[in-house]
Amino acid sequence: MKSIVLFGTGNVAFHLFRAFSNSENFKVIQVYNHSAESLEPFKGKVPTTKKFSEIFPADIYLLAVKDDAIGEIVSKIKNPEALILHTSGAVPVAVFQDFEHAGVFYPLQTFSKNKSVDFKNVPICIEANTKANLEVLEQLANSISNKVYQISSSQRKSLHVAAVFVSNFVNYLYTEGEAICEKNGIPFEILHPLIRETASKIESMSPKDAQTGPAMRNDQEVINSHLPLLNSEQQKIYQILTSSIQNLHGKEL
Amino acid sequence: MKSIVLFGTGNVAFHLFRAFSNSENFKVIQVYNHSAESLEPFKGKVPTTKKFSEIFPADIYLLAVKDDAIGEIVSKIKNPEALILHTSGAVPVAVFQDFEHAGVFYPLQTFSKNKSVDFKNVPICIEANTKANLEVLEQLANSISNKVYQISSSQRKSLHVAAVFVSNFVNYLYTEGEAICEKNGIPFEILHPLIRETASKIESMSPKDAQTGPAMRNDQEVINSHLPLLNSEQQKIYQILTSSIQNLHGKEL
Repeated sequence: MKSIVLFGTGNVAFHLFRAFSNSENFKVIQVYNHSAESLEPFKGKVPTTKKFSEIFPADIYLLAVKDDAIGEIVSKIKNPEALILHTSGAVPVAVFQDFEHAGVFYPLQTFSKNKSVDFKNVPICIEANTKANLEVLEQLANSISNKVYQISSSQRKSLHVAAVFVSNFVNYLYTEGEAICEKNGIPFEILHPLIRETASKIESMSPKDAQTGPAMRNDQEVINSHLPLLNSEQQKIYQILTSSIQNLHGKEL
Repeated sequence: MKSIVLFGTGNVAFHLFRAFSNSENFKVIQVYNHSAESLEPFKGKVPTTKKFSEIFPADIYLLAVKDDAIGEIVSKIKNPEALILHTSGAVPVAVFQDFEHAGVFYPLQTFSKNKSVDFKNVPICIEANTKANLEVLEQLANSISNKVYQISSSQRKSLHVAAVFVSNFVNYLYTEGEAICEKNGIPFEILHPLIRETASKIESMSPKDAQTGPAMRNDQEVINSHLPLLNSEQQKIYQILTSSIQNLHGKEL
């Protein structure tokens, strides 16, 4: 059984804590956060601390914190024996250059506190500074997920950008879709099957081949009739994405 | 048993033809298209024609054609007895002003020929020019789908724009995500669970509440590090969607 100190109390930390509570080989023995208030949900389940001086020695220090908090924690951590890991898509493993045992444990999923996640299907992208540490990381990742990928720091950075496109930006388009429905007295649930199908389709065909819609068809009449229905922010988004689709697909028509 | 002449051979027509082949109360008795070649896939399954003069009388004329072809067909149709319907999200029911029996049958889903669709879960938005015709439309829609909504022409136009946001534009963002992966030797499948979860999440919470990512967190360092990884088209999209997310959520931080 290997011990873990978990740093952070946000969405990623919260879901990782849950996932490891079912692991046979790894156990979270402490949760750290600088704010006592955010530790509240963990109280009674696991020892918690907001003081660096009280952090337990452990096999693994797992930093599930905001990217810009990683550097500060690194500068304060006193236990060079632990394998230190972060969960960030954007921070290179080199942030741990002064540590003997270091790596990255990046779960590629969107987490919200109110929505449970089946970690078995969450891809975990791992990277380590030595072969031996990579083996520990593989065990750690395999203990909660069936989808473990070895991804370098530079690949991970690009993967993170791609994730912003296919998740954060996509969710923002859902938000605009909901706003348009609400403004017109239409239940947003009418769009749920379309949203689900659009997402599921690209598991059996390339999204490039799955493109449909007025921009793809170069249907200028429909495009022109859509614009007056939108606010100025929505118009900007509509125009740039329409022209991007036309640029990509225009030559094929 | 009511008879249908289906106009069109594109993705929507193709899937509607399939769906009605299982209906007990409605039967497609003929498929029309101006091009003989596009009628090929229907040959042997149903009578086909490319000539207006050969179109059968029928209870329902169902126009599953491009928006700009609707007007031309309307001007040529000789049978004022039939209930005439189109499947467009953008064209008002008033396009049929010279017909006694008219309506709209708009299946709100994205269709590709190579991907089968369970019509039972496809929302169908209906509208008719009389109460009696609305009843026929309800029967027609209920015969293939469990999700039938009465939606006015002006609502449908807005719904169509919303669908462009949550499906066509979303699919384009998937396309960019795939391009970024390919450029960096990353299998796009790593992003499938994230895409699925992002889509499924908004069935249990509002997308506004589900927003995550660097723009939402106002994490300028990550945002700045992403931009150099993108081509100029991707940068434009990244910047406009990041600033939209910041505008929407900025005041809440």
